Amino acid sequence: MTRAERITVIGGGGWGIALANLLAAEGPVTLWEFFPYAMEMLRDQRIRPEVLPDIQLEESILVTGDPRQAMEDSALALFVVPSHALRDVARSFAPHIPPGLLVASATKGLETDSHKRMSTVLVEELGEHPLVVLSGPSHAEEVSRGMPTTLVAASDDEALARRLQEWLMRPQMRVYTSRDVVGVELGGSLKNIIAIAAGMCAALGYGDNAMGAIITRGLAEIARLGVALGAHPYTFMGLSGLGDLITTCISPNSRNRRFGERIGRGETMQEIVEGSAMVVEGIYTVKSAHELAEKLGIAMPVTDAVWGVLYDGLEPATAARELMTRQPRAEDEA
Amino acid sequence: MTRAERITVIGGGGWGIALANLLAAEGPVTLWEFFPYAMEMLRDQRIRPEVLPDIQLEESILVTGDPRQAMEDSALALFVVPSHALRDVARSFAPHIPPGLLVASATKGLETDSHKRMSTVLVEELGEHPLVVLSGPSHAEEVSRGMPTTLVAASDDEALARRLQEWLMRPQMRVYTSRDVVGVELGGSLKNIIAIAAGMCAALGYGDNAMGAIITRGLAEIARLGVALGAHPYTFMGLSGLGDLITTCISPNSRNRRFGERIGRGETMQEIVEGSAMVVEGIYTVKSAHELAEKLGIAMPVTDAVWGVLYDGLEPATAARELMTRQPRAEDEA
Repeated sequence: MTRAERITVIGGGGWGIALANLLAAEGPVTLWEFFPYAMEMLRDQRIRPEVLPDIQLEESILVTGDPRQAMEDSALALFVVPSHALRDVARSFAPHIPPGLLVASATKGLETDSHKRMSTVLVEELGEHPLVVLSGPSHAEEVSRGMPTTLVAASDDEALARRLQEWLMRPQMRVYTSRDVVGVELGGSLKNIIAIAAGMCAALGYGDNAMGAIITRGLAEIARLGVALGAHPYTFMGLSGLGDLITTCISPNSRNRRFGERIGRGETMQEIVEGSAMVVEGIYTVKSAHELAEKLGIAMPVTDAVWGVLYDGLEPATAARELMTRQPRAEDEA
Repeated sequence: MTRAERITVIGGGGWGIALANLLAAEGPVTLWEFFPYAMEMLRDQRIRPEVLPDIQLEESILVTGDPRQAMEDSALALFVVPSHALRDVARSFAPHIPPGLLVASATKGLETDSHKRMSTVLVEELGEHPLVVLSGPSHAEEVSRGMPTTLVAASDDEALARRLQEWLMRPQMRVYTSRDVVGVELGGSLKNIIAIAAGMCAALGYGDNAMGAIITRGLAEIARLGVALGAHPYTFMGLSGLGDLITTCISPNSRNRRFGERIGRGETMQEIVEGSAMVVEGIYTVKSAHELAEKLGIAMPVTDAVWGVLYDGLEPATAARELMTRQPRAEDEA
């Protein structure tokens, strides 16, 4: 152990388990989980088979379902819950997070209806805290198996980002810092929309040429929206933008891509969501992005296509064909 | 047929065959091939099994090995030969290309030793001509099977780029124009280096998290070199930069990625090259890029790693590990 401080990981899903194990190798860790069955499974069996079938939770990790106990002696509250649960979870933690405590978010998504970023939700529920956002191309399965991975730690205060960098850096885990919280959060959220499109196209028999094009044009529209929302354009070319986008679009481990594949094969959103415990963040993010793009007057053809298929009765094959047959144009036009 | 002009495709490799077939659907095409056995096979059997096993050459295409005959009645000389052959082939065509004729290059690479771009080589051998460069994520196999693909046609003179756009645009082929000839050519050349690195890492058991990171960091260094050589940074975020890079890195059809995989499994460059008729452009490009980066003082860690493995006795596993364990830093540092 080389880290003295205890870190609290809030959320025992796949990414929470992976981060808890990674952090436990260097110092004390507490893992909080909301669902009693999952908390007990993690505490007693040290495994949560429906999210990470082959991964054992480190023995040293204290598991609890009680926010008060979870925050005892903690130097960092690291939120890793699904985006739709973050506000309620943060509210239940608020009384137990003392002023000035370091808070971090590894949750990717936008709040439905309000379209707020996760760090905004945290500030609203916890008050002002030193805050870091964690993102990047990091499927939990691969991190858990020690496969090489990069992350970005973003904060207005670079010293805080460097603290997370120091705690997470390993031979197989490379962490970069950034000061663009807005860009890092938006990249991690909006990529899920493009991953759904990538899955749809793969199911329709599109190949690698189309995949390169969809990711490229998808990144361009993500960056357009992001810049309008205050992000630095450069951020979208980095690991939390492009890197995460590529990994999510090409990986069979990506829930959003897998969801898109099933949509492309003709299943309905209802059928898929009802049969699965996994959260497909992109289903919600595409609604927010579609509404924001309309409000701000930003062209987002891939987002429009995914939104149309999920919420407006558009056929996947028609949506994909429309993307390929828009008017000829120059590449720097929208 | 909707195109009256005859187009000459110069080079009967995979991409030349795919482009010839695509262009033949709308108008007259002549295909020139250097190697007599390949030319005769294409002329008589309408197939070249060692490069595109299942693809028939369109019956309407005139096949020849004679530059003079190849250019008869032609409105466009479209060069699609390997980069190391371009200067000699262009020289043999020079007497048959009249002043003012439209010339295009679909060859990706840099000339060894001189580090010149392909369009520079063409100008040196043919004199000044109206010139368009064609690039983008376009594996010949997929284009030949009618799978959705995007291309970029770049020219200083936008009207010329639009002419190629008009001739190539199909329901399954979307063509964008660009005015950044330098950026489009460099993106198409330098991506092969990163694809070799991607193949090496895949063979070493790295996963999708690492792939997202390698492509992202690879694009950053390509853009750094490209901008120093006069390209517009935006171009590298587009289809001829990022798009082609992704397709080449993830596709099992990519020769450069496959070459990298074999290097990663411990084969030597010599063994691989001697056993194959296919040209692996990245082997040459990495030498040029490495020399240019050194001369211009530009940090290119992925390029350095690939160069070290191919030309300096570095072990692939050591090279990959070094990439992941460099000093911690901010994302916008090199």
